[in-house]
Amino acid sequence: MHADGEMNPEEILRLRERYVGPSLSISYREPLDIVRGEGQYLFDEEGRAYLDCVNNVCHVGHCHPRVVEAAARQMALLNTNTRYLHGHLVEYARRLAGTMPGDLEVCFFVCSGSEANELALRLARSATGRRGVIVVEGAYHGNTSGLIEISPYKFDGPGGEGRPAHVRVAPMPDGYRGTYRYGDPGIAARYAAAVADEIAGTRAEGREIAAFFCESMLGCAGQIVLPDGYLDEAYGHVREAGGVCVADEVQVGFGRVGSRFWAFETQGVVPDIVTLGKPIGNGHPIGAVVTTRRVAEAAHTGMEYFNTFGGNPVSSAVALAVLDVIEEEGLQAHSASVGAHLKTNLESLAERHPIVGDVRGLGLFLGIELVREAESLTPATREAAEVVERMKDRGVLLSTDGPFENVIKIKPPLVFSRENADQLAAGLDEVLGEIEPRAKM
Amino acid sequence: MHADGEMNPEEILRLRERYVGPSLSISYREPLDIVRGEGQYLFDEEGRAYLDCVNNVCHVGHCHPRVVEAAARQMALLNTNTRYLHGHLVEYARRLAGTMPGDLEVCFFVCSGSEANELALRLARSATGRRGVIVVEGAYHGNTSGLIEISPYKFDGPGGEGRPAHVRVAPMPDGYRGTYRYGDPGIAARYAAAVADEIAGTRAEGREIAAFFCESMLGCAGQIVLPDGYLDEAYGHVREAGGVCVADEVQVGFGRVGSRFWAFETQGVVPDIVTLGKPIGNGHPIGAVVTTRRVAEAAHTGMEYFNTFGGNPVSSAVALAVLDVIEEEGLQAHSASVGAHLKTNLESLAERHPIVGDVRGLGLFLGIELVREAESLTPATREAAEVVERMKDRGVLLSTDGPFENVIKIKPPLVFSRENADQLAAGLDEVLGEIEPRAKM
Repeated sequence: MHADGEMNPEEILRLRERYVGPSLSISYREPLDIVRGEGQYLFDEEGRAYLDCVNNVCHVGHCHPRVVEAAARQMALLNTNTRYLHGHLVEYARRLAGTMPGDLEVCFFVCSGSEANELALRLARSATGRRGVIVVEGAYHGNTSGLIEISPYKFDGPGGEGRPAHVRVAPMPDGYRGTYRYGDPGIAARYAAAVADEIAGTRAEGREIAAFFCESMLGCAGQIVLPDGYLDEAYGHVREAGGVCVADEVQVGFGRVGSRFWAFETQGVVPDIVTLGKPIGNGHPIGAVVTTRRVAEAAHTGMEYFNTFGGNPVSSAVALAVLDVIEEEGLQAHSASVGAHLKTNLESLAERHPIVGDVRGLGLFLGIELVREAESLTPATREAAEVVERMKDRGVLLSTDGPFENVIKIKPPLVFSRENADQLAAGLDEVLGEIEPRAKM
Repeated sequence: MHADGEMNPEEILRLRERYVGPSLSISYREPLDIVRGEGQYLFDEEGRAYLDCVNNVCHVGHCHPRVVEAAARQMALLNTNTRYLHGHLVEYARRLAGTMPGDLEVCFFVCSGSEANELALRLARSATGRRGVIVVEGAYHGNTSGLIEISPYKFDGPGGEGRPAHVRVAPMPDGYRGTYRYGDPGIAARYAAAVADEIAGTRAEGREIAAFFCESMLGCAGQIVLPDGYLDEAYGHVREAGGVCVADEVQVGFGRVGSRFWAFETQGVVPDIVTLGKPIGNGHPIGAVVTTRRVAEAAHTGMEYFNTFGGNPVSSAVALAVLDVIEEEGLQAHSASVGAHLKTNLESLAERHPIVGDVRGLGLFLGIELVREAESLTPATREAAEVVERMKDRGVLLSTDGPFENVIKIKPPLVFSRENADQLAAGLDEVLGEIEPRAKM
């Protein structure tokens, strides 16, 4: 019943065109019909294996047996809302709070990263009684109307309606292509000063800021590592203006960056609100917001926040199992070591392939920016798409992002091995070699 | 590991106060520590059974083995996003579209009813290029900022900031307490004319309406059945003004009303957009939007709608299993017959207990409105709360809602039996008898 393989890809595609919303794009020129996942591998309907280098949702590996078992066991026992007491909810909240620095200990549970950022926005606005928001160029914080308003990736993208009046955009702190570049000792302060400029701009329009939203590493903007000290300086400006600092860890949290459990920790800051999504449930629809008692109380206007599915016993059991697996399998340290190994390999590609303009990232959240020419930094957009297609033909799944879609994104399940890293790097070496003549056109 | 029962209720409550957001209220003066669910029953940590008369999320029964098995099987096989082709997604979309009348056949999958209504609002606004929305007094459409703006239950409730300029509120078509009452042959047309008045009011302010949002039966407003013909007339006014008609079926869909699969069908209308949540996955975090090709295409501005978890193979497998169970166990017909039996019993309570002002509803979505006095309709709010507490002591779970919190809500899992209905009615008979003297104070 409902078995995979009943339908062939053409049939699926035909039904999808008829019955599924048209705004949902499919990866690859010739779509993949994936029927099984295990660890860092996906398998198509013919049993062909693909090395998954892009799924940062299935964080501890596709179909991790420990997570599946925790879900199945709790589903068979109880799945109801949080209006009753349940041990899993509070145990997970305590465990999650335990991973956070400072006073970050009040948890709210939701169903997605978008719901988390929606709630963070509401908390920030309720706590401050203000509406203005500063965001970073290229940022994506979620798919609701309220979040599209604070996501330049969407409001400046296809179908976007531009920047709303209450939102201001600080420049992307991009050391490769931005106004201030790698090697500039003042880079962090300069980009942070641009945040202060936007705060001043907000005030000049008679508004005050509720919040500064920033991904702890920039995802859709193209796998950008914030310059050392950027968040510390920016948070200083934001707090001086009475705003709340929100760290969006939806893409990068839970040990992915290797050196620390949370990516914001690599910046040495403690945010006022942290938002979580994607990896938190290894694919189960879960999101969370963690904040301080001070913000939670200030935001508590009397309006209840109830989320039908958020924090239910199944979601809590799944999230607990994910934490357990990260800890017991040492996945944070693994991400640090495999990520460093992979990054070294990718850097050596850059020496051989002039199209590789920049290699950046932390742990297993890496990006390769392709350019046609080193001086002008002309984005090699078509070439990046071609690399992704050709790597797929070699059984390796990648994707592109960034304002020019010329950054190859690497963010595999954390069980990704050194051998996988070597396979990826070797494949890229070949494919870059194949497409390079075209890059010179 | 992480077993229930490790913590006692006091410990859970203490951790909850410390680690979980303060805006989340707990049911009952003395909270329940529920550890297991089966069918229409919940069990506390001491093994005491409670008849669950309020959980319309666990629609086909708590922990239905068929649904649990479908989830567990698919979780062990594959759970990834919709950028690849997968048979379950399109099979579910086709099945879901097959339950809908007219041209409602384009499906979008999300994680919650809130995400569904958010997307519906976005589709309506994109399709019309307008922003105005007409909603019904007391309505609740979700927990995001954008949905709080169209939910009088929230914006006029505790901590609310009042009605935004682009939203107008039509009176609750409440035949018991509203301006027009049961027995008025023109009741539907009169309440629908009030919708037309709000459209005119919107235009008088120089705005045009994008959408009319209406729950197919009113939930938070107090289990209100729309007068026969109301939606047909209201939709006529809305469409004449170029607006899109959205039926919010989050609370009431999937056969609960008994006579039809969708509650809007009892009104003989075909909406332009239908939103689904709660029961769709029997507790699994799923939501959906179903619309016409015309609306979907008109709304397709080029901005992608991507939902990380929405429509993944596990969610689709779960949702398919829920549809299977509803069909194979004949739960729609069961809801009709048990609901009618229960309603008759409750109506006979009304004859014996003057505090019962009104009994209403369809299928297993029923409400009992308590009043202190039949002429003035003074809400018996305190008494309603007392009934819920005393029924809990008798092992029966209920809740209250409505603008005065004096409506007892009945919306059990659909496996609720005739015997359960008799137990509920007998318990209410006793409890109402006990509290009636107080009601006369």
